[in-house]
Amino acid sequence: MVPQLATALNGPINELEQRMLESTPVIERWFRLEWMEHTPPFYASVTVQNAGFKLTPTDTDLFPAGWHQLAPETLQLAVQAAMAAIEKICPEAKNLLLIPKNDTSDLSYQANLARLAQIFTLAGLNVRFGSLSPQVNTTVELPLPSGDSLRLEPLLRTSRRLGLHYFDPCTILLNTALESGIPGMLEDLNEQYLLPPLHAAWPTRRQHRHFAIYEELAKRFAKTLGMDVWLIHPTSALCQGVNLTEPSGMEALQTQVDAVLTKTRRKYKEYGINEKPFVTIKSNQNPATFGQWLVRDAKDLPQMLSQEAQTLPLSQHSAFLVQEGVRTQERIQDTVAQPQVYVMDRYVVGGYYDLLATDGRPLNPSPTIPLLFDHPSASNTRSPNRFYMYGVIARLAVLAASYELEATDPEAETYD
Amino acid sequence: MVPQLATALNGPINELEQRMLESTPVIERWFRLEWMEHTPPFYASVTVQNAGFKLTPTDTDLFPAGWHQLAPETLQLAVQAAMAAIEKICPEAKNLLLIPKNDTSDLSYQANLARLAQIFTLAGLNVRFGSLSPQVNTTVELPLPSGDSLRLEPLLRTSRRLGLHYFDPCTILLNTALESGIPGMLEDLNEQYLLPPLHAAWPTRRQHRHFAIYEELAKRFAKTLGMDVWLIHPTSALCQGVNLTEPSGMEALQTQVDAVLTKTRRKYKEYGINEKPFVTIKSNQNPATFGQWLVRDAKDLPQMLSQEAQTLPLSQHSAFLVQEGVRTQERIQDTVAQPQVYVMDRYVVGGYYDLLATDGRPLNPSPTIPLLFDHPSASNTRSPNRFYMYGVIARLAVLAASYELEATDPEAETYD
Repeated sequence: MVPQLATALNGPINELEQRMLESTPVIERWFRLEWMEHTPPFYASVTVQNAGFKLTPTDTDLFPAGWHQLAPETLQLAVQAAMAAIEKICPEAKNLLLIPKNDTSDLSYQANLARLAQIFTLAGLNVRFGSLSPQVNTTVELPLPSGDSLRLEPLLRTSRRLGLHYFDPCTILLNTALESGIPGMLEDLNEQYLLPPLHAAWPTRRQHRHFAIYEELAKRFAKTLGMDVWLIHPTSALCQGVNLTEPSGMEALQTQVDAVLTKTRRKYKEYGINEKPFVTIKSNQNPATFGQWLVRDAKDLPQMLSQEAQTLPLSQHSAFLVQEGVRTQERIQDTVAQPQVYVMDRYVVGGYYDLLATDGRPLNPSPTIPLLFDHPSASNTRSPNRFYMYGVIARLAVLAASYELEATDPEAETYD
Repeated sequence: MVPQLATALNGPINELEQRMLESTPVIERWFRLEWMEHTPPFYASVTVQNAGFKLTPTDTDLFPAGWHQLAPETLQLAVQAAMAAIEKICPEAKNLLLIPKNDTSDLSYQANLARLAQIFTLAGLNVRFGSLSPQVNTTVELPLPSGDSLRLEPLLRTSRRLGLHYFDPCTILLNTALESGIPGMLEDLNEQYLLPPLHAAWPTRRQHRHFAIYEELAKRFAKTLGMDVWLIHPTSALCQGVNLTEPSGMEALQTQVDAVLTKTRRKYKEYGINEKPFVTIKSNQNPATFGQWLVRDAKDLPQMLSQEAQTLPLSQHSAFLVQEGVRTQERIQDTVAQPQVYVMDRYVVGGYYDLLATDGRPLNPSPTIPLLFDHPSASNTRSPNRFYMYGVIARLAVLAASYELEATDPEAETYD
């Protein structure tokens, strides 16, 4: 099930979208059976690229911020999904400890935290914030524009439990991807539920693993629907163990770029797509600390990187994901509208558009537009759900994350 | 969790409502723990009476129609709840057979069926309608105002399964309370999920059992919140084995009416309520076939019943529930606005107001007003959820129905 939200799509429904809309019962059942065997990540946001002819995920964030950017009308979906998630994990739950990023100075991030607290309070939990930041050694009040305030408290760790002064939570929810490593304070918490688990953070995650699993799932899914997997999967290649400050490293990366461009060109020809393909190059680890490069020709790479080298310590990165570029064709006025889909447990609970410059680069400040319910009147219930395909692809990415977490679980029992 | 819907309440929040709003985490956890032990009915609608000083359920319908009267914006809540329900009952579900009332001529009931089909289709099921009516011996198409049509098909029963021609459902959903008895066609379907179970229909249900269980739950709930149970429970008394066409039967009923009026008067005095109490008298079985009488004085009863006797075969009813009358004080323009709360699985998914004449009698035609999300803007998220207390009382009634179904389950194992 995907809520019917109004997208920026107003053109005719193309073949890919039509296929998904027609296959709703098959798709929903497919997911239902998958979730019987696999535990969904607690929450996630998925960046989806809609090129019109193909639709792919490009980033699956397992510690999503930005919850305040969802339409308030969709809040109840998140609350209902949060209830379902909590009931499965810890039905006796009373107290929820929310751990934000260390840097909470950003007003937008504060609004995100306030929304998350609202969701879990409405789901029936006492919510308090505990900070990992060494600066928070006493209670800090952050005033919010609404007149409320966010109260950050220092974490208290005992030998077996993590909490706050007079607050012993049964569940701890991380809203930080722990980019700079796993703090010792979060380790060995065997008595409490730590969500998402530590191996969902970037010290463990790898982009190529996520997309390799996604590809396998997308193949099975596409087979069920009788369609070409390429329509929902970006061709990807891993380039690892390279040093880009050396010519051999550069050559290795160029080879992968060439390979992905060649495959993409062949597919464009097969589908009669009259566009110039490009690839994106991302760090195989946390994408947020690195950004991505867009490349149309492997030959351009050395010059591009010599410019990047000014700002980026290239030598610190040795593994890259080279991925077919899929550019969202959706437009709101003169900007590119890039869908972000939010998932809680197994439920799509909302989304918004990031508005980008026409070359795909972020605008500054970076505006967003919430996706609203597409139900102006009761008589309109027959209009197709144009948000549906985003919800399908986002859930496919979230399912891939679920397999990924199973594969990297340090406590998983291995059966031979 | 209860969605924040805009009610007709615009006065100050009174003590009862304030108590519930402040206790949200306690209340939500209380329900969560109850649902760990007890299976919610598949769906239900609950009529709630809000007298201002007290708030009570008066009818818990386990085969609810009227789904089309919920705001389309709230549709996704029902879909999400339906998914959660189906996942628990039969995750492999593919086909859902919906069995409506025999008489589907009412346009409003047709719209209800169309909405139910929409909900379960969006939840990922193939939905078809099978009719119990002997008139439906071939496929019947009912045109809908939307341009779609409803297709009713004759049921096909084999020795072990119920279905349609070329349609073998794993789940069968009843949208009829089977007032005139259980058809043999629905019996002994041990291979399929029949929802709600047959003992949820009126041939088995009794009003007094529902309200006796509700009272016990309400006592526990009120104790948790430190409040008087009377504020959420209508004083009730069962009068059974009586023949109202005989003087002794009439006297027995008058005695119960007097008893409930006396208790109510005492409570009114305790709370300083300057109103004249009344009672309602309902059949202890299906309320729909009987209606209810309003009585302010036991002495009026003989005359009232001699009038009723013109239209109602009194001798067919021998058991009555005498219940403290609680009259909704909510008004929309010049009509009484009577809340109807819809619950799917354990989730409150929406509601509407039935508009009644000021004396509480139905208007003809009977208008309804859907409850809309109370979220005009993101800045408004701090306003209290005035629908919350309705959601609490409705869930308390639904929980009572869950206990009731456990108590009457013919297949329940008894442990001593």
